[in-house]
Amino acid sequence: MLGKRALVKSCYRLRLYSTVNTSAETVETIPSILDPKFEIPNGSVIFSGIQPTGAFHLGNYFGAVRNWRDFQTRIERDHINSRLLFFVADMHSLTVPQNFSRLTNQRLEAFGSLMACGIDPEKATIFFQSEVPEIPKLQWILSCMCGMGQLNRMTQWKSKANLRNDADIAADFGKVKLGLFTYPVLMAADILTFNATHVPVGRDQAQHLELTRELVDIFNRATKSKFLHQPMTLLAPTMKVLSLKNPEKKMSKSDPDDMSKIFITEDAKSIRNKISKALTDSVEGKLIYDPVNRPAVTNLITILAAALGRPVLEVSNQVEDFTKKELKDAVSDAVVKELKDPAARFQELMKDPERLDKLSRRGSEKAREIASKNLKEISKLVGMGYW
Amino acid sequence: MLGKRALVKSCYRLRLYSTVNTSAETVETIPSILDPKFEIPNGSVIFSGIQPTGAFHLGNYFGAVRNWRDFQTRIERDHINSRLLFFVADMHSLTVPQNFSRLTNQRLEAFGSLMACGIDPEKATIFFQSEVPEIPKLQWILSCMCGMGQLNRMTQWKSKANLRNDADIAADFGKVKLGLFTYPVLMAADILTFNATHVPVGRDQAQHLELTRELVDIFNRATKSKFLHQPMTLLAPTMKVLSLKNPEKKMSKSDPDDMSKIFITEDAKSIRNKISKALTDSVEGKLIYDPVNRPAVTNLITILAAALGRPVLEVSNQVEDFTKKELKDAVSDAVVKELKDPAARFQELMKDPERLDKLSRRGSEKAREIASKNLKEISKLVGMGYW
Repeated sequence: MLGKRALVKSCYRLRLYSTVNTSAETVETIPSILDPKFEIPNGSVIFSGIQPTGAFHLGNYFGAVRNWRDFQTRIERDHINSRLLFFVADMHSLTVPQNFSRLTNQRLEAFGSLMACGIDPEKATIFFQSEVPEIPKLQWILSCMCGMGQLNRMTQWKSKANLRNDADIAADFGKVKLGLFTYPVLMAADILTFNATHVPVGRDQAQHLELTRELVDIFNRATKSKFLHQPMTLLAPTMKVLSLKNPEKKMSKSDPDDMSKIFITEDAKSIRNKISKALTDSVEGKLIYDPVNRPAVTNLITILAAALGRPVLEVSNQVEDFTKKELKDAVSDAVVKELKDPAARFQELMKDPERLDKLSRRGSEKAREIASKNLKEISKLVGMGYW
Repeated sequence: MLGKRALVKSCYRLRLYSTVNTSAETVETIPSILDPKFEIPNGSVIFSGIQPTGAFHLGNYFGAVRNWRDFQTRIERDHINSRLLFFVADMHSLTVPQNFSRLTNQRLEAFGSLMACGIDPEKATIFFQSEVPEIPKLQWILSCMCGMGQLNRMTQWKSKANLRNDADIAADFGKVKLGLFTYPVLMAADILTFNATHVPVGRDQAQHLELTRELVDIFNRATKSKFLHQPMTLLAPTMKVLSLKNPEKKMSKSDPDDMSKIFITEDAKSIRNKISKALTDSVEGKLIYDPVNRPAVTNLITILAAALGRPVLEVSNQVEDFTKKELKDAVSDAVVKELKDPAARFQELMKDPERLDKLSRRGSEKAREIASKNLKEISKLVGMGYW
């Protein structure tokens, strides 16, 4: 039984079309990538990226990569002539402090994780951002067309730099790194280097997609061409997987408490152990989906629904009479089953880093075939040379 | 006979070591590239660039390119093991509005002008910035290490955007293009892609060289390496060649009055015609070097001294009893003589754009040999891949 508030929240999570206020001025309707009615058009270029935080945790998996795999499956099943490009956004990762030698491993683990989750290098192009020189070149070209005011309106750099209001900005703007501020222009360059038509992203990136479309307009106008396409935002579902130990926080790779997170690389025993020790609450009676009042139980229901690939409302109804132990067992079973293949594949892949390296190089080469064709044309349009 | 004020000004122009206030905090002593006591060390990498405004005018020639040729001559004469790299800064040119199809020609003309002025592709590496993908990649890496405050302190973007004070900045900062604001980071990337040791620049770029050295420190500290070198600023002489028609303004390619400027590509007749019609003044008596009160005459003396390669004080003394016509004739003779070879070579070179294109490609390849070696190492140091 769901309270009204929880119900509204659930529907919010389940909605197929989201009305997202991505900036002060615009409210737009963005299709969700889970919408079965969304048809992938022939000739589309679907493009997305993930930061190299290492092997993925449940949040990365359910929030992004599994959806990408679904695209891959649909394209194959429906014989759609569409190109899939997924990349490890290693250059973006430099916008926050990094341990560079750890990053080297995390990049490879992220690449291995993509494959382990079922992204198939024969069906999709998987590559490292830093191996495609066309991207930073286009970033420079777009930089010369992008106003400081357009970037100033972006919200992500402010939240990442922990600038909560105008006073914070006035005091600490000088300390913000240029790369963090210009991140959205690199993201536009990622997309436009491949002239992508559809970009699945999380809500936090929707505003950057809007900027990308603005830059397309400016570029086409300035060059009197129609070379760049307006990429369409595909919103990833609001699949927030929370910490197993503190449901106030998102599940995060950087959480020092190892029991708070589950990686796609873990074995059954470890997964069962962590879920059995996950925080619940001391509320008696039925288990209800209520993100506000029962976030820990709600998180387990969310994970269960995601792992089963079922609507959260349906799953919530099914488990309402479970004990907390029964819920945890159901979650464990489902997660262990869902992660069995990825975990095994990941172990297998990481045994042979040379092969991974080779695969990543082949991916970069495939990516560069498209990138170089586009950048040759773009360079010509703005009077530049190309190597 | 020089007035005291003019004398001080002259000495200012002739000084070998300049004390330049390049930022609010620092006053530093920068060696001039004209200093015969400046020894070019073995193993040095001398690096500079010029924007593709097309064929060079007298200001470009005397202010920059002729000095580069002098380096080339000294290195050969003294058997110095030093590398010379000169580039056409086409990507920088995007920071101000451009007609892109005109830019395509201007790039080639700039390349041809460098060669026409005596830069020899067998002795120096000449290349287009946009043909070296390592540069924008390094720009991104440096962006992630550069604070917004460091760029905010730069003065050139403010003057180029015509922001004269804090009120202007507050009102119009949003309209400034990101590329103009981040220009100094691209300039740092130009230099550091080649790990240049010496960079001849005009006074307006000295502040950007300081920023480059700051970024070297930040990079080396962050990567616990000593990979990047501190590049040394070599100040080009303050050789301001003014408009022949309005000595309030610098000689400029973009001046609509064709009689205001002389290009290195002009024939003797055209040069003599323009100089004979150059503005002077209505002051009677001796011709004196006095930039404040007699800017037009001073400009002619400056051009004469530059063309003869003699100190301006010496030349000023020689011509003090000349009539204005005699001065103009002397200037014409000297300029015609100095530009005879460059003009002939330029006409010859531009007849064969394919050969120029081939030479530029070979230059870019040579540049990329160094660039790729450095960027491979830099990428590794920050945990990135390399193509």
